Formats: sequence, structure tokens, C-alpha cells
Amino acid sequence: MSQVLQSYLAGRWIGATPAQALRHAVNGQTVAYTHAEAADFAEAVDYARRVALPKLLALDFQQRASRLKALAKYLNERKEALYAVSAWTGATRADGWIDIEGGTGTLFSYASVGSAELPSGNLIHEGPALPLGKKGVFAGTHILVPRGGVAVHINAFNFPVWGLLEKFAPSFLAGMPCIGKPATATSYLTEALVRLINESGILPEGALQLVIGSTGDLLDQLDERDVVTFTGSADTAAKLRVHPNLVRHSIPFNAEADSLNAAILAPEVTPDDPEFDLYVKELVREMTVKAGQKCTAIRRAIVPRAHLDALVERVQARLAKVVVGDPAVEGVKMGPLASHAQVADVAERVALLRRSAEVMFDGGSGFAPVGVGTADGAFFPPTLLLERAPLGDAPAHDVEAFGPVSTLMPYDGLDEALALAARGRGSLVCTLVTREPQTAARMVGALAALHGRVHILDAEAAAESTGHGSPLPVLKHGGPGRAGGGEELGGLRAVRHFMQRAAAQGSPSMLAAVTGEYVRGARRIETGTHPFRRHFEDIQIGESLTTPSRVITDADVHAFGQLTGDLFYMHFDDEAAKASPFGQRIAHGYLVLSDAAGLFVVPEPGPVLANYGLDTLRFVKPVAIGDSIQVQLTAKRKIDRQKTDAQGRGQGVVAWDVQVTNQHGELVASYDILTLVAKRER
Amino acid sequence: MSQVLQSYLAGRWIGATPAQALRHAVNGQTVAYTHAEAADFAEAVDYARRVALPKLLALDFQQRASRLKALAKYLNERKEALYAVSAWTGATRADGWIDIEGGTGTLFSYASVGSAELPSGNLIHEGPALPLGKKGVFAGTHILVPRGGVAVHINAFNFPVWGLLEKFAPSFLAGMPCIGKPATATSYLTEALVRLINESGILPEGALQLVIGSTGDLLDQLDERDVVTFTGSADTAAKLRVHPNLVRHSIPFNAEADSLNAAILAPEVTPDDPEFDLYVKELVREMTVKAGQKCTAIRRAIVPRAHLDALVERVQARLAKVVVGDPAVEGVKMGPLASHAQVADVAERVALLRRSAEVMFDGGSGFAPVGVGTADGAFFPPTLLLERAPLGDAPAHDVEAFGPVSTLMPYDGLDEALALAARGRGSLVCTLVTREPQTAARMVGALAALHGRVHILDAEAAAESTGHGSPLPVLKHGGPGRAGGGEELGGLRAVRHFMQRAAAQGSPSMLAAVTGEYVRGARRIETGTHPFRRHFEDIQIGESLTTPSRVITDADVHAFGQLTGDLFYMHFDDEAAKASPFGQRIAHGYLVLSDAAGLFVVPEPGPVLANYGLDTLRFVKPVAIGDSIQVQLTAKRKIDRQKTDAQGRGQGVVAWDVQVTNQHGELVASYDILTLVAKRER
Repeated sequence: MSQVLQSYLAGRWIGATPAQALRHAVNGQTVAYTHAEAADFAEAVDYARRVALPKLLALDFQQRASRLKALAKYLNERKEALYAVSAWTGATRADGWIDIEGGTGTLFSYASVGSAELPSGNLIHEGPALPLGKKGVFAGTHILVPRGGVAVHINAFNFPVWGLLEKFAPSFLAGMPCIGKPATATSYLTEALVRLINESGILPEGALQLVIGSTGDLLDQLDERDVVTFTGSADTAAKLRVHPNLVRHSIPFNAEADSLNAAILAPEVTPDDPEFDLYVKELVREMTVKAGQKCTAIRRAIVPRAHLDALVERVQARLAKVVVGDPAVEGVKMGPLASHAQVADVAERVALLRRSAEVMFDGGSGFAPVGVGTADGAFFPPTLLLERAPLGDAPAHDVEAFGPVSTLMPYDGLDEALALAARGRGSLVCTLVTREPQTAARMVGALAALHGRVHILDAEAAAESTGHGSPLPVLKHGGPGRAGGGEELGGLRAVRHFMQRAAAQGSPSMLAAVTGEYVRGARRIETGTHPFRRHFEDIQIGESLTTPSRVITDADVHAFGQLTGDLFYMHFDDEAAKASPFGQRIAHGYLVLSDAAGLFVVPEPGPVLANYGLDTLRFVKPVAIGDSIQVQLTAKRKIDRQKTDAQGRGQGVVAWDVQVTNQHGELVASYDILTLVAKRER
Repeated sequence: MSQVLQSYLAGRWIGATPAQALRHAVNGQTVAYTHAEAADFAEAVDYARRVALPKLLALDFQQRASRLKALAKYLNERKEALYAVSAWTGATRADGWIDIEGGTGTLFSYASVGSAELPSGNLIHEGPALPLGKKGVFAGTHILVPRGGVAVHINAFNFPVWGLLEKFAPSFLAGMPCIGKPATATSYLTEALVRLINESGILPEGALQLVIGSTGDLLDQLDERDVVTFTGSADTAAKLRVHPNLVRHSIPFNAEADSLNAAILAPEVTPDDPEFDLYVKELVREMTVKAGQKCTAIRRAIVPRAHLDALVERVQARLAKVVVGDPAVEGVKMGPLASHAQVADVAERVALLRRSAEVMFDGGSGFAPVGVGTADGAFFPPTLLLERAPLGDAPAHDVEAFGPVSTLMPYDGLDEALALAARGRGSLVCTLVTREPQTAARMVGALAALHGRVHILDAEAAAESTGHGSPLPVLKHGGPGRAGGGEELGGLRAVRHFMQRAAAQGSPSMLAAVTGEYVRGARRIETGTHPFRRHFEDIQIGESLTTPSRVITDADVHAFGQLTGDLFYMHFDDEAAKASPFGQRIAHGYLVLSDAAGLFVVPEPGPVLANYGLDTLRFVKPVAIGDSIQVQLTAKRKIDRQKTDAQGRGQGVVAWDVQVTNQHGELVASYDILTLVAKRER
């Protein structure tokens, strides 16, 4: 019996009356209905603002990152439930893996980005703070803060799980409640996902709402605090982009549209090279994975004219081995399209393409997908076209058939290959298969101007390549022009898109209070206790130690040179040093650094467990033999990753600002050190 | 005699026939005409793409930065010519300074950003590259490349010089030819500027074109490679944003709209505090500088109700001292509006505001600007309004009078102050005058969500504060919502907005070839000569040295501890070290670092002049007593800043990747060192 899908809005599951029937892609049977009940989007947005937002912001970045990790684990343990529903979309197990485990993998990745790269609290200090005057009493810096609004994520039918999770993860980290609107055709799978998420109880109430069916007046409820993301066709993106309410409030609209992605086979690759077959494999994979229903799929295969025949032959041979049918049947490599509407749409577009291109492969008249009931399924055969004169008005540069369809385009010379790629007018991704780093150096800059991602494939990379079609959480996804001009993913970049950047100006003490980080020139705190003797919880930002000073003697420099083997003339040879820019012998920078540590390190065991790194060291001024140095060490930043060591002891990260000055009070070295500091309590 | 202004398009000055008359703001006399000749924008855009773009990209970031610096100097030397024309706009000398020297100052600032923060070449590697597999044969990173298109900059009438230069500087650095379109009313000043720039011969031909009068079909000539920026009213921004051709090609549209900026006086500030008068001064300055014609001016003065009367009194007293008239007359502090059309517009909006607000100060019936002919000038008196119940439907939250007009709004409690500020629905800037860092910490996060810049003012910062109304080249300018949602300036951020970001994936060798930087795992070059013995020009990226190894002995650790005074127990106390996370005594991290330098430093004088810094040092694994270490040093990045030392010797920056490994080949420390390297040739 088919279920009526429900929206989850304002804390309630809504819907009981069937409206639109949604059909199983393999056999055409109805599997679910959308609901007829109208949703109250004003209430949903108000709920997100009033109920969910305070709960989200009661957590900080680190805590939200932990929730993402817990959610990823929870969903992975229940993934079979999702695979079962995924089958209705016509997905093979491999197709489902991209969507389902690709989705949870993205949650894991953002959990890790959040934990490793975000601070405690809900504000990102995008420093460094810059002095804006000579006295140092006025400085400026940048901060990223939660927008205080709602993220509406409108998604395409092809990735019902990944599509929502890849947008949810960074926006949730950023502190935005989300309203997800999957494409209706496959919304049953997104509904199953959201039910699991809800049952987990891992997210704060209202952090994720779900719209089944039409968005109605949802976009009219938004204002300048909110963000809308869209994945789908370029036409729909263009319509939504001019939505009067989005324009009125300058609401950021991030579009990721399917595009006419290209893959270029470089001219130096011959049919005898392994790269030739890598190209063939990649093209066929992109045509058939998810039955070609990927925004990133290769639509235009740009190949050297000299090798066209060899290439066609190998692609045909490989396509001939692809078994199309019900993915439940063993050996089936490609399933149906996601819906019958898509079959009609793809057929229509292939007809447009065929006005100019020749068919090099298709199902032929005997195309019959294997499996029971597949005659009523949404199948479409893999279709390879050839556009012999692609520099002309080839429809393949403008018409996208969103299915297992690609068009071959022969070229002569690299410039022609670049010109053909550019005819896509902005795409998500381009693959360049080449053997030569020089070819990559020459082409990738030009390709990057019109592509969101450039994938370079050679025999070496092939062993680990994640492939042309896979957006990765750590890399930007989204392309210019036709691809919508948006940016998604890319690690922390994606989180920043869901926050508001502001410049902040004021005295260093004010900026320190605002950013939660010590800013040079801000008031420092001297407690009388060495800050290294204090536990993580007790250390205050601005807590500071001024060490005694020590002279760096000629004997020190000689001893250091002997010990380390660093006998650079500048430290030992009076005459040569005189001729150098410094005009005299100076102490080793590394000696200054080591002596500085000697001045501030506490010998006995204490809460500071280790100094595991050092950032942005600059030797600002040379230290002459006989100069003395002194260190000012100030607690700059604390991050509570809520982690414990093997013994279960809690610890946090403390970064310290270090300023080394000479006997004249001049800065000679400046850096941050990173320490692990034990907590008082577990 | 009044001149006919000319457009500079496709390498020619165009225009001879007068069209619209432009009037002197002080006395109403015609000073210039726009031209009647139609411009051919298809030709102009084609010229930018075909002629200018290759010339711009024949230079690299460093060379374009040098051109900006030369241009700034050239213009500064001729600034009086610009001040003379600036007087026509009604600007006082101080007003003109903001526009003219603010403009050249922005060029200087971007010259310095380019020189200090951008590489050689035309590609920015936004690393680090991340391994995407376990074997390290496939990695991903991000690059920023020139878009290969044109930047169209549409500007407001109030900053004819700064307005163009602040957008030109980052887009030129990014490698985009620009087409500047100043607002017609004051386009005579921008024309004078562009004539000077042209005469200088400093920029490549076509790098800057100028449109006087209408933009006609200019926007229809653009495509996905191009960028449009706009500064002006929110209404016009909304219209341009939905331009069908911009939408069709997802052309980035960056809007900076005037907004209803607020200044909040914190409740703890009493009339006896210096901050109280700072607030009064800032408000009056923002009302009268440029006769209030700044996108950033304070429109809404949000003040504690308890101090309203005291505040009104002091503002009135200060406003009464402002002499309005012809800026050529000594003692005049405020000039006219820029045009007669603006007077009508401001009067209309003040009438709207007065439906609800009381007038606390205006010119009165006797308002008479000083100077000859000012009766025909575009004068408007400073006007202070008071909205007693601002939480209601006060028009001051929606209506902007773009002149010397501000509205006082009393509040009770911080939350009410924040709510009032938010009623601006997104602004460019907010000032918070406070004495308390805690007040700043509590309020600035919330303010930052709806403002592009937050300016915190107290007695300490006042000594150097650049003021509420001044965007600075190093800080972001632009706000969310009503302010247009754009981002300008902010140092390197602005350059990035004019480039295209792409992810790049491939083998480390391919990524190294593409980025021009060594990527770990890429092929290294061993020339047989120590790379420190080679000059800047000769060092190749990837050139590498593998040092011999050395053992770090217990004696080394003791000698190092004695020498530096770093007697941390982890290096000396067997028992305590056993109880530590490392489980045994380990060598000082700084000893490892120093010994590593000892292994790779060349003692004799040579091309490597100094190691001036170190980045991203991580002690990856501890080095136990008796372990041996070995270093691999690889040329990672070269920057030719085209600078010479005091003796005229050329030098460049080389960054080296350093990997320190132990006897098992495990990475123990990882960092970059920065060196200055002499050139072979001057």
C-alpha cells in the first residue's frame, strides 16, 4: 500500500490526503503520494526563527560539529532502510551509495571541518586585526557571525539524500535552521531520511524542516537574514533568482545548475597510452552512473580528431557491455531514469541534438531492459552522439539531455579544445585527461575561468581519482555562468557562505572583547601565577606573562652553532657579516626562538602538555651579539574541542601570542604557539 | 565656456555635441554638458576583450601592483587639478580630500596588498593541497584565476573619484579591463580623472574605459566572464539585479546601496563622559561632511531615552555653529548638495519623515548660505529630526533623505537598541559608542549580522578613529539586505571577488604544474647543487635537497637545555615523561627545528640572504632520545616583488617546504621557511 508523504513543519508532520502519485522508476507502480493539505509557511519560518534558532545558537560550532558526527553515525547504522527506498528511484546499489553514503560522508567531513577549523563559540575571527593608526589605539578586523535567519534548500530529484545533507551540514554548522524542499519526484526518499533524523533526536528541535510538494509562498516569508540555495535546471534558477522578495531583501541566492560539462582528451594521448582507456572508462561511467542523471555528468566529450575513430570504437564496445534493467537483477549496471517525466524530457532533447549530431550508439529498436515489469519503467538507453563540426552552431553546446547521453566533439589543436569547452558558457566541472604536466599548466588556468572544478586525470592519479562526476565536501562545487554562478562545499568556505561577514573597528581591547581573541594592544591580565600553571578552564584570554630578560652572548652563538651544526657566516664571520645587509654579526633566529622558549617554559609537570606547533613566525629585527631579549606571552585563543586523551582526561587547545623584544623594547620576533592544555575537570 | 564631456571608449574620446547641461552646485551655472553622440558598447566590450585583456594579462599581479602605485603617485602630484573640478560639486576642501586623496590612497593600499600578498604570475593558489587518497597520488586544491572578462563599474554621484578608483584598483589587480560609468550629475570630475590617467600612459591601453551619460545597451553585451558592480540607490540596485542578460549568464552583480545606518549611544555613557561628546561630534560630522551625501552617513541616531534631552541640546548647539555656504568662502564648513535634483529629492523625503518626526533643528525661515550666487545653488540646511516612538511604524526606518538629515530615536534597554538598529533591514555601517568592552561583546555580534561594518568608539580609540563614515581599503565595505548584499574592499578579499575560484584535482605533479607551487608528492628535482647556492632566477619550483641524517643524543638534549634554559620535564625527567602522553623522554621541538636548520644551512656567503620567517610549523610526531632526523627541503614558491636592496641588488622571496623525518621515514616536523634570495642580475 502506498503511503501519503508528509511535510515536517513547525514541529508537526502534516498530510494525510493523497494528491500527486509518485511512481516506482523500475516498474511504474505507484509507491507514494504527495499530500493535499496546504502548508503554512509563515508559521514554518516563524517557528524556525523563534524556536529553532535559539536552540541552535545555544550550541557552539564545536557542539554542532559533534552533533553532525553523531548524526552521520546514526544514519550509517540505518542506511539499509534508505537503500530500500532508494531502489524506487531506479538506483543501483552503486548509485545509492553515492547518494546515501555520499551524504553521510559529507556529514562526517563537515563534523571534522567544524572540529578542526572552527573555534569555540559562535563567531569566527577572520583576522589578523590590523592597526589603523600609528599609536595602536584603533584597529580593524573581520568577523563572521550567524545571520540570525533561515536557510531554504531547494533540491533536485537526482540526489534525494546527499542533495539535502550537503547543504544542511554547512548551514547547520553556521547556526541556521534549515527548511529542505526536495524535488517531488523522489521526495519519498528525502522524507524517509528526515524521519530517521527526527527519530534520532540528535538535532535541536526545528533545526530541519521538510516540505513535500509545492513551496507555495515560502519565499515570500523570507527577509534579509535568510539564505536560499537551489540545485536544479538553469531555467528554474533564472526564475527564482528574480523572485521579487529575494531581490527586495538582497537575499543571497546560491544556484547550482546542471551544465554542459566537458571532458577533454589531450592531443598527446595516443590509443596505446593507458590514459586513452582511462578517458573511455570515465566517459562511459559518467554516461551510465545514475543513468547519467548527474549535474556533473560529461555531456561533451572533446577529443583529438586524429583519434576519433579509435575512441568511438572503444566507447561503443564498452557501452555494449552495460546491462540496463532492474537494479535488483544481478549483473544490471544501469537502472531507469527517476521518473517517466524524465524519459519524455530526455527523449525530446535527444531529438533536438540529433538534428545536427549522428547517433553512434543507442539501444536500437530491440532495447529491452532486463527484469520483470520494466516495460512500464522509466528506462532510456545509453546514447552516444557525434557532432562532426562542433565549432559551428551545434545544439550540444546548449541543449542538455539529463540522462545517459553524451556527444563526441572532435578538435584540432589545444586552442580549439579550449574554445569548445568554453562554449558550455560556464560548467560545474571539466576533466582533462593528459600525460603532460605542461599541458595541464597551459590548459587548466583557462578551463578554471569557466569551470567550478577541473579534474586532471593521468595514469598516476587514476589509482585514487574520485572521478569526474563526484563533488567532494572539501572541494568547491558550483560553476559560473550556465552552471548558476554558485559555490557550495569546499570545506570551511561553505560554512562562511551561510554566515555574515562584517568589519569591526575599535580599540584593541574592544576588538578582543568582541572576537574573544587577544588583539595586540588590548589590556592584558597578569594574575601573578604563570599562565602555564593554570588549567584550560582557568586561562583567561589576555592572561599574560612578561619574562625576565637574558643576554645573547657570543659564547651562546658559538655553542648553538656547534650543537646544531648551523654555521652560517652571518653568525660567525665578522667581515662577511659586515658586507651583508645586517652590517654586523647577528644571533641565529632559531637561537632566539629557543632562548625565548627557555624564558617562558615551566620545567615541572603542569597543565600545559605539549607545544605542538607554531604559526606565522617572523624575525622582525636582527638580534646582535650582546643584545638581550625578553618575551611577552599572552593567551590569544582557546578552543574546546571537547576531546579527551587516551586516559579520559579532558584537554583543550590554547594559542599564545608571543612577542620577543630587545633591550630597546623593539620587536625582534613575533609568532603564535599552539599548546594542548589539560582541563581541571574531566 | 562650458565643455562637452567625452566618453573614452575603444581607444577614442567620443562626443562633441552638447546634450544634458550639468550645473555648478554652488551657483547653479552650467559647467559642462554630456555628449549627444551615441556610444557603441558592443565595440567597447569587444575592445576590452580583444585589445585590453591580453595586455593586462601580459603583466602579472606584481607588475599590476607596481602600476597602481605609479598611478597613485602620478595622480597625487596632479591632485590640485582635481580639487578645482571637485569644487563644482559643492565639495569643501575636506570633502574633496575624502574623494580625491581617499581615491589615490586606495590605489596605494591595493598596490601594497598586491605586492605583499599576491604571488608572481596570474594565478592564486588558495591552498593547501589536500591528499584525496591514502597513497598520495591524487590531491585537490583551489585556484583563483582571471575571469577573462570585463568589469563594468556603475557609480554614484557623491564620490566621482574614489568611487571609480576603489573598484578599479582590485579589478585591475585581478586582471580585468574596466568600463567605468559615473553618475551623470558629477561625471565632469570623473572625466577629468580619466583624462589624467590616460595622459599618464601608466596603464595598458584599454584597461579603463569611461562612459559619460547613459549605459544604453552596455549590459546586454556582457556574458558569464564579466562582472558588474553598482553603487547607488537600493531601488536602482533592485532593477539592475534582475536585468535579463545578467540573470541569463549568472553575471556576478555586486551592489552597494545607501542605507539607513545607525549610531548607538550605549546606556552606560552619561553626559559627563567624554564618549557622550564623541557621539555628538560624530553625529554632527556625519550630517555635515559632504552635506550628508554619503551612503554610510548616520541616518538614525539611537540614544538612551534618559539622556535624550541632554543630547538634543548638545547636537543643536554644535549644528548651530556649522556655517553653510560656498566652500570657497573662509569658515564655510558645509557646502551645497551635488545637484538641484538632489535638493528636490531630499526635501521630498524630509517631508515624508516629518509626517511622524519633530524637527529639532533646521535652517529655519532665514536659511541663507553665505557666498555670492548661492541663492541659485543646491543648498539644503542640516536637519535634525526626532522620532519619539521609533519602535512603531516610523518612516525613518524606511525613508532615506540623502543629505544632511538624521533622525534621533530614543530607546530603553539594550534589546530595544538592537531592535531599532535591525529595523534598517541591513545597513553598511553601525557605530556603537560605549565605554564597556562587555557592552561591545554583547552587542557587536548581533549588529554584525545586519551591518557590513561595526565601528566601536570610545575615548581610547577616538585618538585614531577614522570615523563612522569612512570605508577603508583594508576593511570590507558593503552590507546585507537593504544595503545591497555586496562586498567591496577588505584587502585581498576584493581582488578575489573579481577572479574565478575553481577546485583542481589531480596527481601532485599535475597540481604543482598548474599552481606553480610545489605540492607534496610531486616530482622533485635534484640538480646536484645545493639549492641555497643558486640565485633567485635559477631556482626551479620542486628543486630539492635531501640532507644527511643526524642522531639526536641525550647529550644534545642536555646541552640544548643548559644553553637555552628550557628544562621542561618531558626532556629530562624519565619518570614524569613516562606518565605523560608520550610515554618517554623526547627531544625539544626547538632542538629538532634548530638541528634541521643545521642540516640544510650553507655556511658560506651565497645567494640566500636571510631566513626571515616560518609558517605552519607542526610537530607531527615526537623525536625520542637517540632517534635520528633527516630533512627534505624543496623550493615551494617564488615571488618576484621586483624590489632591490639598499645597494640596488635585486632579490626575491623563496618559500621552502621543509619535511623532517625520523629513522623510520616518519614525518616528525613539517613547515615552510621564508627566505630572501639574491638575483643573479640587477
